[in-house]
Amino acid sequence: MQPNPERFLADLHALRAFGAQGKGVVRPAFSEADIASRRWLAAQAEAAGLTAQVDAAGNVFGLAEGKGLLLGSHSDTQPEGGWLDGALGVIAALEVARASREAGGPPISMVSFQDEEGRFGALTGSEVWSGHLPLHEADQLADAGGTTFAAARAALPGEGGPGPGAFTRYLELHIEQGPVLDTAEEQVGVVTAIVGARQFTATLTGQQNHAGTTPMALRQDAVRGFVDFAGRLDKAFAPLVTPHTVWTIGALDVHPNAASIVPGRVRFSVQWRDASAERLADMEEAARECLAVVAAETGIRAEVGEAWALAPTAMDPACVAACADGATAAAAGKWRRMPSGALHDATNVARVLPTGMLFVPSIGGVSHNFEEETREADLVAGLMALGAAAAQLS
Amino acid sequence: MQPNPERFLADLHALRAFGAQGKGVVRPAFSEADIASRRWLAAQAEAAGLTAQVDAAGNVFGLAEGKGLLLGSHSDTQPEGGWLDGALGVIAALEVARASREAGGPPISMVSFQDEEGRFGALTGSEVWSGHLPLHEADQLADAGGTTFAAARAALPGEGGPGPGAFTRYLELHIEQGPVLDTAEEQVGVVTAIVGARQFTATLTGQQNHAGTTPMALRQDAVRGFVDFAGRLDKAFAPLVTPHTVWTIGALDVHPNAASIVPGRVRFSVQWRDASAERLADMEEAARECLAVVAAETGIRAEVGEAWALAPTAMDPACVAACADGATAAAAGKWRRMPSGALHDATNVARVLPTGMLFVPSIGGVSHNFEEETREADLVAGLMALGAAAAQLS
Repeated sequence: MQPNPERFLADLHALRAFGAQGKGVVRPAFSEADIASRRWLAAQAEAAGLTAQVDAAGNVFGLAEGKGLLLGSHSDTQPEGGWLDGALGVIAALEVARASREAGGPPISMVSFQDEEGRFGALTGSEVWSGHLPLHEADQLADAGGTTFAAARAALPGEGGPGPGAFTRYLELHIEQGPVLDTAEEQVGVVTAIVGARQFTATLTGQQNHAGTTPMALRQDAVRGFVDFAGRLDKAFAPLVTPHTVWTIGALDVHPNAASIVPGRVRFSVQWRDASAERLADMEEAARECLAVVAAETGIRAEVGEAWALAPTAMDPACVAACADGATAAAAGKWRRMPSGALHDATNVARVLPTGMLFVPSIGGVSHNFEEETREADLVAGLMALGAAAAQLS
Repeated sequence: MQPNPERFLADLHALRAFGAQGKGVVRPAFSEADIASRRWLAAQAEAAGLTAQVDAAGNVFGLAEGKGLLLGSHSDTQPEGGWLDGALGVIAALEVARASREAGGPPISMVSFQDEEGRFGALTGSEVWSGHLPLHEADQLADAGGTTFAAARAALPGEGGPGPGAFTRYLELHIEQGPVLDTAEEQVGVVTAIVGARQFTATLTGQQNHAGTTPMALRQDAVRGFVDFAGRLDKAFAPLVTPHTVWTIGALDVHPNAASIVPGRVRFSVQWRDASAERLADMEEAARECLAVVAAETGIRAEVGEAWALAPTAMDPACVAACADGATAAAAGKWRRMPSGALHDATNVARVLPTGMLFVPSIGGVSHNFEEETREADLVAGLMALGAAAAQLS
């Protein structure tokens, strides 16, 4: 089985034309461009000798005969999306399935999941397909304009389609959407896990005062408390983290937010992501301890409000091994194992099938942006790594 | 000359009734309550044998015969003000002037400046009187509702009035509006200088990124840059400051201010106040150097935007000495020399007359608030210190 790079690139550019806008693409789930592209994709699958099926959630399958691998990703985009994102993985899946069939190889099927980008929910199509979200609940999700998933999917009628039991494993190729591979001048990433995340919102309440008449020693300045906390957080995280761990204070509001008033209150988010559930828990303990120390040492009141947690998703060891072998075949010395910092359809599929993922670089780490781009040689390296991994697992 | 505490307290409560609301007072410049209170004040001056005059800016004088001291403050309030604030200094001035006249002592005059609280400008009445702001320019200042100073002052017609040349020196008694005296359980503060202030707005521009896919080592996180700056600022200021120096980061805005996005930009104010012009300048140099170091070490771009500076105002040494003797007489062992962290009419008057100031404690440091309060014994200590200082200087 030998995937054909020229045919793959030609199909990738053909898909790009649906919703093209400048260098980018506007093709949100169930938009006119998305529906047209899904019909085109089904026709390409049929032309390749696969059986095209659309399920009730709008997921498009190209099915080989017999139980085998499922490859895919999603072809919907952000409201202002890049041309690769999930489209890359869908067209690479089409090419590998087609090449295997041409070569009389093992059965390999393809899928484009729907609404990965969250016009309605988040990873909606794969969430329904993996059985985690009942269709009647998905139907009640609405986009920013009030259109429901139920109303939107009526424009692309489908029913039935294969369940997870029809397949042995799932592989997904995707752009990295971060700068790691591009910075390292590497061509392929083998995903070991999709990271989990935790977040809380903290409020520090000090004493609002006149910025001229209140001596430093008598202040309870909430911004100073925040700076104290942020410094302690880095020190507390240092012994816990790996080079892949990330943490972010992304949102911060000061009250009353006036130059001549000692700030009485600061509210901010703390978010951290890692592939290890244990590390995520250890970091939460450390972060809460930092807040407690700031409160004890300054007299500022510290409260933790809204909090959420998303567990990490480990990739299947056999899939990781096959992806590593595929990466070695396609890009020897220019690939690495790495966690995925972003969520993918693979997160949902991993609930029901052994799953693996491959990345190719994003130039400058740019994604969800018209400027998103990947070198052509790297796109092809990703295709060939996927093909080799699929051959090994079949 | 012996000021009469009972008469002083009675007059202070009489003035409180104009615009009283709960424990506080609503008596902004040229409001109905303010105009009524200024007419009442003029009548009290006349009753004390002084000559009442209202000048074009709405400043009310009670004039003794012959060149001598001027004592006073302001009797307008914030939109929601405390009952003491400047009213204390006006009524103390009335009582000392009255007592001196009754005792056949030296000529002592009184004043209530207009619009100290800035309904229209800032310290407007004393700014016009000291010749720093021409009346025709003041006339164009407008309040938040669009009413001009010109239109407002038509309701309290006045013209002429004495110029600074009619007086030898100026003394002002005021509440501290900060927590220093109350915390130290002292009764009187002798002001050595009214602090100056400097402020700039800084913008740190890093790189906005996905909070999941961007490794820590590749981030230019503007909030992290801010935390770095704030920590360096405290270290850089430490060898420069005195216990009276204050500095505040009171306003801070983060862009795009979302928990899952590495912040690309932070804009914040840095303000510092001190009685020494040299120290203010040294601190500015240190603050700008901290920004430069953060920029050099992180690659984050640092820019300084809007900046302003207000020079410190030293009090006259003879006035300070007399106030110190007065404080010793009225509150031996329970007073201190201190800078004023807030602006006062004395800032303007000091341009044209040797000037001194006395403080009494504000309970909890609370001011510009209905809850503002001072113990009665401390009010009387302030009156007696002012009387003794005035006697010594006359």
